[in-house]
Amino acid sequence: MNNRQRTVSIISVAITSGALVLAQSTLAQTREQGPWWPGPHGPDDQAGASNYVTPMKILAALQIPQTGETYELGHPYEASMPSYGSRPYFMQVVPPPAPTSGEGGIANSEYFSGFIGQMGTQFDGMAHQGGNIQMADGSFRTVFYNGFTADDLFRNNRGRGGVEALGVEHMKPFITRGVLIDIAGYKGVDTLPAAYEVTLDDMRAALARQAMSEDDIGQGDAVFFNYGWAVNWTNPSKYNDSYVGTGENEGSPGIYADITRFLISRRISLVGADSCCVEVRPRPGTDNVHRMLFLGEGIPMLENMELRALAADEVYEFLFIGLPERIKGATGSPMRPIAIR
Amino acid sequence: MNNRQRTVSIISVAITSGALVLAQSTLAQTREQGPWWPGPHGPDDQAGASNYVTPMKILAALQIPQTGETYELGHPYEASMPSYGSRPYFMQVVPPPAPTSGEGGIANSEYFSGFIGQMGTQFDGMAHQGGNIQMADGSFRTVFYNGFTADDLFRNNRGRGGVEALGVEHMKPFITRGVLIDIAGYKGVDTLPAAYEVTLDDMRAALARQAMSEDDIGQGDAVFFNYGWAVNWTNPSKYNDSYVGTGENEGSPGIYADITRFLISRRISLVGADSCCVEVRPRPGTDNVHRMLFLGEGIPMLENMELRALAADEVYEFLFIGLPERIKGATGSPMRPIAIR
Amino acid sequence: MNNRQRTVSIISVAITSGALVLAQSTLAQTREQGPWWPGPHGPDDQAGASNYVTPMKILAALQIPQTGETYELGHPYEASMPSYGSRPYFMQVVPPPAPTSGEGGIANSEYFSGFIGQMGTQFDGMAHQGGNIQMADGSFRTVFYNGFTADDLFRNNRGRGGVEALGVEHMKPFITRGVLIDIAGYKGVDTLPAAYEVTLDDMRAALARQAMSEDDIGQGDAVFFNYGWAVNWTNPSKYNDSYVGTGENEGSPGIYADITRFLISRRISLVGADSCCVEVRPRPGTDNVHRMLFLGEGIPMLENMELRALAADEVYEFLFIGLPERIKGATGSPMRPIAIR
Amino acid sequence: MNNRQRTVSIISVAITSGALVLAQSTLAQTREQGPWWPGPHGPDDQAGASNYVTPMKILAALQIPQTGETYELGHPYEASMPSYGSRPYFMQVVPPPAPTSGEGGIANSEYFSGFIGQMGTQFDGMAHQGGNIQMADGSFRTVFYNGFTADDLFRNNRGRGGVEALGVEHMKPFITRGVLIDIAGYKGVDTLPAAYEVTLDDMRAALARQAMSEDDIGQGDAVFFNYGWAVNWTNPSKYNDSYVGTGENEGSPGIYADITRFLISRRISLVGADSCCVEVRPRPGTDNVHRMLFLGEGIPMLENMELRALAADEVYEFLFIGLPERIKGATGSPMRPIAIR
Repeated sequence: MNNRQRTVSIISVAITSGALVLAQSTLAQTREQGPWWPGPHGPDDQAGASNYVTPMKILAALQIPQTGETYELGHPYEASMPSYGSRPYFMQVVPPPAPTSGEGGIANSEYFSGFIGQMGTQFDGMAHQGGNIQMADGSFRTVFYNGFTADDLFRNNRGRGGVEALGVEHMKPFITRGVLIDIAGYKGVDTLPAAYEVTLDDMRAALARQAMSEDDIGQGDAVFFNYGWAVNWTNPSKYNDSYVGTGENEGSPGIYADITRFLISRRISLVGADSCCVEVRPRPGTDNVHRMLFLGEGIPMLENMELRALAADEVYEFLFIGLPERIKGATGSPMRPIAIR
Repeated sequence: MNNRQRTVSIISVAITSGALVLAQSTLAQTREQGPWWPGPHGPDDQAGASNYVTPMKILAALQIPQTGETYELGHPYEASMPSYGSRPYFMQVVPPPAPTSGEGGIANSEYFSGFIGQMGTQFDGMAHQGGNIQMADGSFRTVFYNGFTADDLFRNNRGRGGVEALGVEHMKPFITRGVLIDIAGYKGVDTLPAAYEVTLDDMRAALARQAMSEDDIGQGDAVFFNYGWAVNWTNPSKYNDSYVGTGENEGSPGIYADITRFLISRRISLVGADSCCVEVRPRPGTDNVHRMLFLGEGIPMLENMELRALAADEVYEFLFIGLPERIKGATGSPMRPIAIR
Repeated sequence: MNNRQRTVSIISVAITSGALVLAQSTLAQTREQGPWWPGPHGPDDQAGASNYVTPMKILAALQIPQTGETYELGHPYEASMPSYGSRPYFMQVVPPPAPTSGEGGIANSEYFSGFIGQMGTQFDGMAHQGGNIQMADGSFRTVFYNGFTADDLFRNNRGRGGVEALGVEHMKPFITRGVLIDIAGYKGVDTLPAAYEVTLDDMRAALARQAMSEDDIGQGDAVFFNYGWAVNWTNPSKYNDSYVGTGENEGSPGIYADITRFLISRRISLVGADSCCVEVRPRPGTDNVHRMLFLGEGIPMLENMELRALAADEVYEFLFIGLPERIKGATGSPMRPIAIR
Repeated sequence: MNNRQRTVSIISVAITSGALVLAQSTLAQTREQGPWWPGPHGPDDQAGASNYVTPMKILAALQIPQTGETYELGHPYEASMPSYGSRPYFMQVVPPPAPTSGEGGIANSEYFSGFIGQMGTQFDGMAHQGGNIQMADGSFRTVFYNGFTADDLFRNNRGRGGVEALGVEHMKPFITRGVLIDIAGYKGVDTLPAAYEVTLDDMRAALARQAMSEDDIGQGDAVFFNYGWAVNWTNPSKYNDSYVGTGENEGSPGIYADITRFLISRRISLVGADSCCVEVRPRPGTDNVHRMLFLGEGIPMLENMELRALAADEVYEFLFIGLPERIKGATGSPMRPIAIR
């Protein structure tokens, strides 16, 4: 980590799906303008916005439940899930059953191969996406949360055994206040249409319908958007349609840059939704929500959720529990997100 | 599931590491004597003792924490972990970093292969172990929790894509009262010696040292034993020594049949410890703790925990959170167990 | 191997896709009628018809080439190949390229996961398929080449690390006389239609067109049928159509029982074709060509070949080279089959 | 491929384990001095020295055998093989055997994961190793055979699905004259000692003992050195000792730069030996035999051979057959090398 360069000179400013070109300044000076380093949790931090889930935040969240009823907010993992691109999922329980003889029994285990941190209901950690920034000398560098570079992540092992910085194992447990914003419910539809961009006005109206306002979203909260898109989960070609990025795709609904800026301003700990990407696909502009959330702020994402039961029961505030597995060097993690009312 | 046979005639009774030979009777009639079907949660149940974690149990557990401090009760996952036998663990973050050009950024994911549900800190579900029972006609049948047979688990796919019954995805979330029983602390040692059998007297004395008694263990609790064995985690040849089952092994400490019978009698939801197997290795007799817990009672196990910090801070009662990933058809799951004081 | 039972009593006779029910007799006595044990290469043999490729056969075959020109008779391996059912194919070259510094260089290797012996151009060994036979007591047993049973193959390791008998590593190299029978050429079509059964008359007429006859096929020869079906190789949904076995499939062309009996009578060493299965799909009757070839005779198969160039150049007799990789315990092998004219 | 730069300016000359610093010249002009581009087979060639195996060379080689006896020159593949570093090897035959019922049978296949092209007896292709060269502007570039760059190999897919240039599928079949040079036999030992550098004098004396001379090695030949090191194959910790590169290792015997230069001068098609690396380990100087053979000349290597039977029978000239599997984009391949006397 000694060689990490975080205080490089930067040139201009914008967060785009392409290059981040920042105003001439030291990185520290650009903090008010967007991505910045050091980030809000100090120059060596790798836990990002999970730091907002403090003991006091946890204690308060534990007081929310009134009935103890739980909701599963994710899908089970299986080979038939929609997947992003061509990602194999293979599992074989071994050893196979032996002929039953008089003595003993059987002990089974399962061999799996696949994209362990980027399949199905998935938690995106800080190593999942970086963005290119232009340096003072005109060259480009790929930068991740808190100014970690691609070289920091891949220096010695080139990804073998996992990244060497910002692995998902650094994320603290999410045991916090959860807020559901039911956009599909506000719109009165089962699901938003493909490629629909959820606007700030949509969000405000949906909150109002729930007798809430923007001010009910606070530091450390986990915020989830119900688009209703999970109705397509069992139809991968439709659900996946949002992925591929060719002209033929219809995409999927989602938030975009303005809501993202609002969420960042509230210092939430996590944002999720019931679609591949949380953000609208295809992107209507050059902003990239993943990188807006990750690079300066360290806010992780939870994708491919299942929020319909929660919405149907009008559970808008709840105890949220989401525990990223501590897979060393992984960019993401499977997650079994739980709401308790 | 239509062909499942649960009401077979059985011959005599004993739970052993080998054959279960039950008294001539219907299965229902053997209930008081050990394994039985239907089990306590009904004939079709696949969730076992996780059923004891009811909404009321959850609500009560949420009231336990006083400070909101969290403890990690597991180890991170990495290739260097001790493993049971020869189990490959491979992870490569892909794609590797591209040369940084002016536009765009980078999106990483990780390809993994290995024993996803039976590596490191692991949750053993109901399909992990079955035992052979002798039928009235003298033949043997391999039976799992609630009388599901090997044939029920492997009927159509022979384990490809997971077992067809008792997959770990049926387990409910463990959000319950946790109890730590610090055996190493009672003994005044860093770690119990290899092959040490923890006795009922040890357990009672350890509880007394904690100002607790057997009566402080109740329905739905998650009970964990600190052997101190996690001191060997970074020394796989020592830690693993308990696994291999050859005469050369020194084994690992653990509970055995009498404590197991006590835990069953209290209808706990989960038992765990900081060793490979929770139960003492090598086994001093013919009883098999895994099968005692699984077959009739559906009590799952949590292995390879890290309990030293909890013990050092004398946290004996806490909110426990453990969420088995819903990997369809898996026999186990990775788990990130959390205690909140 | 001590417990292997090869001299069991059998009841009646027929080779079907289902049960083999053999006439009451010892196995040795049924030899004239179909499957039999011991087979033609002795009771312990695991090399099957590759035994026919003797040094003298090799020496003779080496004399065939006149020009030294080589033909590739297989397809390259890649993820986009047609596959039988859902079989993942994943390859990642690792480590990814490091940033280029002044010293050193780069060493790459490739991590692969998939069905190593049953993908693309594939050699089917003796453990690939077995058939059920009914024993004198009415029970059934799954039997492979030379009377090896499923229990022989899976006794100790249940397939972990490969089968314990009849692994493809026992096969001797195929360096022998090759014969192409160009059925598509005889029919004057690019490809035979799906589900077309190649008849004995077709075979004879195709040979006559090549100025050959049945008597030009002899002991130890490798015999290949060109159906022209490789035109569909780049169209997996069409090529695969032959696999799935549902009513919607159109199938693929191939030989069936009568040609198979002829090939067996000539004691050839190998049979192959440019389709998934060599044999016609769907099967028009209860005979199963794989099992006819494997069980009694030990004749392996080579599937998914590419024979068009050979046919276009009218190369009907050639030196054939096919080397099954000696992957211990595998049921098949990738193969790069070569013809030299 | 359009962007590939092959005619770059280079500065000075030397083949080292580190940077290749070439004399100021065009690449073509450096040809006499070491690595050069375009190579001897034209600027677009990806088949390297396998091009020397022409139809005429094949025809001549087919005339060598007198008896037709075959020798296996490689080891079977299995999990217990010595491996270079930590490389998992996993195979499970699936599906497991079903209970045998009256109808049908069983079809097995094998799921494998591991380093398919870099395990056991392995053929190293042109993408396996590249070296860094310094450009006229002082920067470094990683270059492979024929001037292909790391960027050419990894441009679009970053190794996913294989390299994009110089994949092993471009290699032509090796059906050629084989020459064995029995160094261990000349020395009168079972095996050369670890780290022993085979000298030019050793090679000449060994050839003389075989009634051969340097002039008996010609264009397109496959040349193999017997070090006797295969005696350690079943002792991975000894055999592997040559790999790891720490100070504690004893290494393995092998050729070095002077013999390599001789082999290059003879335009052989392939060089192999019965050790991990063919070349002596640890390296006694800065030369890297792999890169000397690969970069300018395109001469591939065959590692971890088994040459003892051939040496014992004094078979020094033979028909060699080695068929790299055409695994698209792989850096190497398993191989079953065969000698016919």
